[in-house]
Amino acid sequence: MPIIVVDVMPKPEILDPQGKAINGALPRLGFTEFSQVRQGKRFELSVEGEVTEQILDQARKAAEEMLSNPVIEDVVNVAVIDESETNDEAHA
Amino acid sequence: MPIIVVDVMPKPEILDPQGKAINGALPRLGFTEFSQVRQGKRFELSVEGEVTEQILDQARKAAEEMLSNPVIEDVVNVAVIDESETNDEAHA
Repeated sequence: MPIIVVDVMPKPEILDPQGKAINGALPRLGFTEFSQVRQGKRFELSVEGEVTEQILDQARKAAEEMLSNPVIEDVVNVAVIDESETNDEAHA
Repeated sequence: MPIIVVDVMPKPEILDPQGKAINGALPRLGFTEFSQVRQGKRFELSVEGEVTEQILDQARKAAEEMLSNPVIEDVVNVAVIDESETNDEAHA
């Protein structure tokens, strides 16, 4: 079953307290490679059957109107993946 | 500046109340194309300079040890993107 992934991130100019907290904790755990961390959301929308251009448009609309808050967040990615792909990644 | 993206999703067998709430709200707003919605997290780790294999390994380690809770979540993706790419997507 195909999945449409929607990625939403806080706008660059918006404070991201969760990301900041992780940023502060990483060096204490030995991770010193990263200069900044920001935390956003990933949504997976399952689609029965084929993902048509029309369904993808609906996903983009849902991303802008419902899955993100346009005042403080950007939709940074809307893309189709295959579910088997996700599972492969998860167990890699 | 390159960014390492880490995607974390609730395990398939774990209840996802946020995803369920969105799933219930979508049809009321006219979005009837999606059979299931799950909500996870997306982290963006900024790296100064080049992303070496060693830095990517550290990101994978941080993803497993700190950015996800292995009891209830899977790390489904760790990948490098270019920051300009994200901005393009955001304004597409």
